[in-house]
Amino acid sequence: MMQNNQTCQLCERENYQKNIAYEDENFVILFVLEQDFYPLLRIISKNHYKELSDLPDVLRQKLFSLINKCEQIFLQTTAISPKPYKINIASLGNYVPHLHFHVIARWQNDLHFPDSIWSPLRRSKENTDLKISVDEKIIRQSFNKNQ
Amino acid sequence: MMQNNQTCQLCERENYQKNIAYEDENFVILFVLEQDFYPLLRIISKNHYKELSDLPDVLRQKLFSLINKCEQIFLQTTAISPKPYKINIASLGNYVPHLHFHVIARWQNDLHFPDSIWSPLRRSKENTDLKISVDEKIIRQSFNKNQ
Repeated sequence: MMQNNQTCQLCERENYQKNIAYEDENFVILFVLEQDFYPLLRIISKNHYKELSDLPDVLRQKLFSLINKCEQIFLQTTAISPKPYKINIASLGNYVPHLHFHVIARWQNDLHFPDSIWSPLRRSKENTDLKISVDEKIIRQSFNKNQ
Repeated sequence: MMQNNQTCQLCERENYQKNIAYEDENFVILFVLEQDFYPLLRIISKNHYKELSDLPDVLRQKLFSLINKCEQIFLQTTAISPKPYKINIASLGNYVPHLHFHVIARWQNDLHFPDSIWSPLRRSKENTDLKISVDEKIIRQSFNKNQ
């Protein structure tokens, strides 16, 4: 099992000391406002694996469980409002090939809908009436319930 | 459990009678060349669920297992060559809010790398030297091994 990779920026733990929503022995989850707009939970494997299928079975099961938990926090708690219309899930890792997943809240009047958040903009912050509020405390607390 | 939704195009089974790589009671997997370029396996829930967390636990586990299997087929068989540099996994469903996942093969000289396949083009088919070959028979056969 690879422990870390000296040229990988996700292996440098100081890059994710901020905005930690959840952490265990194998994964850390950061809450960020992607593009200064989208509530996003980024699940990062602490050890350096490139692909999902490189993970040992037990860790892959844990990762899947965390992806589902992130979605539930966005949909079933009051952590973000208004309630998202749709959840997007993505693992790309083209820029940084160290396994991580994004769980992203989407609304029909957000900046890119119905396209991906990496697609060309459909509208600007100035011409959407969507105002998102986030309670990060609820997000952090929710990870500790019913684990 | 919702069986299907009359206004949902992914509930109309005739929309995915072609290019079936795998099928069981609950999921169908289509092989497509997305954007006429990217080898992509699209895993579709047969019943109409909007979100991952809406799935019963048993089906969510089965879906996760299929995602991993699709990745393994792209990385560990000779179904596509050259060997992909990276696998991308995504579930958006913004256009069609019926649960489906994409498992996508990526190369460093593909049309969008290192961006998502939904991002603006980085290069055209004419100015990449990447020539991808696909053996769909190997893909179909691989699903039936070690299930």
